[in-house]
Amino acid sequence: MPRIDLNCDMGESFGAYRIGADDAVLPHITSANIACGFHGGDPGVMRRTVAAALRHGVAVGAHPGLPDLVGFGRRAMEITPEEAYDLVVYQVGALLGFAAAAGARLQHVKPHGALYNMAAADAALADAVAAAVRDVDRGLILFGLAGSELVAAGERAGVRTAAEAFADRAYTRDGALVSRRLAGALITDPDDAVRRALRMVLEGRVRAIDGADVPLHADTICIHGDGAHAAEFARRLRAALEDAGVEVAAVGRADAPATAPEA
Amino acid sequence: MPRIDLNCDMGESFGAYRIGADDAVLPHITSANIACGFHGGDPGVMRRTVAAALRHGVAVGAHPGLPDLVGFGRRAMEITPEEAYDLVVYQVGALLGFAAAAGARLQHVKPHGALYNMAAADAALADAVAAAVRDVDRGLILFGLAGSELVAAGERAGVRTAAEAFADRAYTRDGALVSRRLAGALITDPDDAVRRALRMVLEGRVRAIDGADVPLHADTICIHGDGAHAAEFARRLRAALEDAGVEVAAVGRADAPATAPEA
Amino acid sequence: MPRIDLNCDMGESFGAYRIGADDAVLPHITSANIACGFHGGDPGVMRRTVAAALRHGVAVGAHPGLPDLVGFGRRAMEITPEEAYDLVVYQVGALLGFAAAAGARLQHVKPHGALYNMAAADAALADAVAAAVRDVDRGLILFGLAGSELVAAGERAGVRTAAEAFADRAYTRDGALVSRRLAGALITDPDDAVRRALRMVLEGRVRAIDGADVPLHADTICIHGDGAHAAEFARRLRAALEDAGVEVAAVGRADAPATAPEA
Amino acid sequence: MPRIDLNCDMGESFGAYRIGADDAVLPHITSANIACGFHGGDPGVMRRTVAAALRHGVAVGAHPGLPDLVGFGRRAMEITPEEAYDLVVYQVGALLGFAAAAGARLQHVKPHGALYNMAAADAALADAVAAAVRDVDRGLILFGLAGSELVAAGERAGVRTAAEAFADRAYTRDGALVSRRLAGALITDPDDAVRRALRMVLEGRVRAIDGADVPLHADTICIHGDGAHAAEFARRLRAALEDAGVEVAAVGRADAPATAPEA
Repeated sequence: MPRIDLNCDMGESFGAYRIGADDAVLPHITSANIACGFHGGDPGVMRRTVAAALRHGVAVGAHPGLPDLVGFGRRAMEITPEEAYDLVVYQVGALLGFAAAAGARLQHVKPHGALYNMAAADAALADAVAAAVRDVDRGLILFGLAGSELVAAGERAGVRTAAEAFADRAYTRDGALVSRRLAGALITDPDDAVRRALRMVLEGRVRAIDGADVPLHADTICIHGDGAHAAEFARRLRAALEDAGVEVAAVGRADAPATAPEA
Repeated sequence: MPRIDLNCDMGESFGAYRIGADDAVLPHITSANIACGFHGGDPGVMRRTVAAALRHGVAVGAHPGLPDLVGFGRRAMEITPEEAYDLVVYQVGALLGFAAAAGARLQHVKPHGALYNMAAADAALADAVAAAVRDVDRGLILFGLAGSELVAAGERAGVRTAAEAFADRAYTRDGALVSRRLAGALITDPDDAVRRALRMVLEGRVRAIDGADVPLHADTICIHGDGAHAAEFARRLRAALEDAGVEVAAVGRADAPATAPEA
Repeated sequence: MPRIDLNCDMGESFGAYRIGADDAVLPHITSANIACGFHGGDPGVMRRTVAAALRHGVAVGAHPGLPDLVGFGRRAMEITPEEAYDLVVYQVGALLGFAAAAGARLQHVKPHGALYNMAAADAALADAVAAAVRDVDRGLILFGLAGSELVAAGERAGVRTAAEAFADRAYTRDGALVSRRLAGALITDPDDAVRRALRMVLEGRVRAIDGADVPLHADTICIHGDGAHAAEFARRLRAALEDAGVEVAAVGRADAPATAPEA
Repeated sequence: MPRIDLNCDMGESFGAYRIGADDAVLPHITSANIACGFHGGDPGVMRRTVAAALRHGVAVGAHPGLPDLVGFGRRAMEITPEEAYDLVVYQVGALLGFAAAAGARLQHVKPHGALYNMAAADAALADAVAAAVRDVDRGLILFGLAGSELVAAGERAGVRTAAEAFADRAYTRDGALVSRRLAGALITDPDDAVRRALRMVLEGRVRAIDGADVPLHADTICIHGDGAHAAEFARRLRAALEDAGVEVAAVGRADAPATAPEA
């Protein structure tokens, strides 16, 4: 039976500022990537988001970002691999504190924004992120863009990885995301996005922006949580997957098929 | 055989900024209170400080502070108990990440600066800090001012506590610290400070600023790490204690006499 | 002809985070208090908010707060008068940069949140805030709670002051605001709030929470900008004032009646 | 009579953290680049640094940096020209506040660290920085690397510029600085550095790292303020310049030869 995880970024509110539609999205997903205070999130938001995820039976993971709150972690910064290692250990540890306090375990780590993109393309940064995840807790699963340096680094480091795909983003023939700055980068029709996600899961393929049909293996699909229709899209996507006989489950569940590191 | 722990605040450098004389002090102490990035410290400093402490066989603990880097965590803030809980969980968790990455365990938590003082005097804040420590890891030892609300809160929460005393601070008849704003608050003569520390450990007593001789139980004595003579004082104090037959050892060592919570 | 200024806190968004309904409120007010990056606001938000205020012919002022973004500047901090002076100079200067770049002048300074409340009650902090305003630009008008230490400090410092009143807050017999923690602190009925504001302006009086009728002189009335109905309330209040023959104008307009400092 | 300005970065301490040797260097320089709180500096440090510079008759300028305190503004960030404009306006304005409070005028603006390097190489960022300087105060002088995009942008924007050279850095044949990562990038012999500076000022030439002799026009020479021998080097350089008949004076002095914008 085919199986997929649905993940969403969560807990990105900060102090008096609210962002995202966490409560509306949580019923439909299986893994929550919780911001850790660098690009978004604060200690109180982290505690409440862990609690909300657990109430919905959603697996919790850390979503560490660059130290750039005003830029929401979306601006690339010239950091060293050592700095990447340190900021991932710090943020994963901080969320680990809240998970422990709630009697829960962290399932995964998914870097945020510019850190995610930098680690997808730069092997040295990717190795540093993977080492950080492994060193904090060897049982954590590293989420990275399918086919990216980050997933490869996780495999090198001996940690479980989950290949992530995006239902609402266009792909190049090489399996990379089309830059948001280019026309056609976003799949804006929800029906189309659902169809693409189904095909990724059932056939392991996606049609690239140039029309080529390319392979794409996905362990988890990312739901964007901040649009007006985020929750509705999440609900529809999950229903369509389940209707098609796909099991929607957290990647870290005992029997889940996340890629095992080579022995 | 009498026994005492010597602790010192560590890892308070930040980015390009250096503070403290950690490397010089580490050979003489048994417990390191490591800043966690709010009042001082940053992820890289935390990693390197954990490593340095472990090289010297010094037990590592978290030193969480208020979110006030420019004020070095020394300015009281009107925070709620919930906010206190959250910022302790966050910071202890972050350091836990580095300890885990280094294959070590955290021994203790000692709040910093204004948070330490606020939690010494305010039972609700103290309960929140103690609950945070317990919830992250029930095996952690909470360091607090001897006789303070924080130590009482730790006992209520069922966590081990260590009563802290200061060799270089004057005490009131009630066992409180004399405010730094008052004359005579600081014991500036190192010989005098050493004598007072010896008497605390061997006799459990200290002479208060008004001349009264009062009881004072100490599990750990704080060494200030930022003066020019910090390391030299630490060396002398430790030598004097050992010459007097006192065992100087981390409070969390298996056989150490930290106050056990009531069953 | 009676005259009043209507002011509102503005520009408190930060990075990706949106707060307030600035665009909806601006058509109805005469003075904008623009956050300066410490409790809210960021450089881009400041530039855009200055531009928006100028488009609506609204006078611009600085709204400096405590360095506590996660607490939105609402948590009291134990700062020295010197620290208060410095953080007001810094933030007013920063906004002055954007005003100069837009070819505009700053009209006023109104401290935010906990800083406003601390300076209302503590003469030394109030003197420091007033000195900062005077030292940056002697032509600035200092907004403070009517009858507070801050207004008195402005007068001592020789700066123009504007006494501020709140349509939607209850007052004590002494002219202080009833703490938000007490029942009845907020005037939740908009009709009631409008009636109270009219009476403050036309009669210089308000009914205190204990039923006493007390004098209250207001140069400017604060509109809260973050509720769902902020803009609608602002529109109604302004219409009611104008219908009653009150001129609604920025306090710093050449002919406006802000309290002049004693010669 | 040949003439040169000597500038140094100043006021980069932060809270409890001290960096630099400002007091020792100030007697020997003519222009102080004062940090504005983003990469270093805080409101209190800014006030005290302005006062110290004025006591020594040193001209004050703003030294705005990227919002990266932990990285000391040395890490490149992917910011837009609009973001560069905004953060320069903000920081120059903030320092303007302290200058106004001290009864002084700002002479110049010199971007810091990664912002300086980015604006030296990227015309769009350089235009944004130059526009910010012009918009805050058309009388400000923009300091930039001699021959860089930043100086060209200043000229396009119609602001006065000062071309900056480094006595202790190696140059390429094109007049660019040799990357610090390459061998020979730093001139470590003080005698050599003094000789090179003299030749830049008296002959307008420098020997590049490949041995070529290339033209280099300098209006101001940068003294590094954070080494152990910073003050001693500044003293020697100034003495050597004056012995050679060079007038050492702030670039913005009424009669100083900063490059005037084309009419």
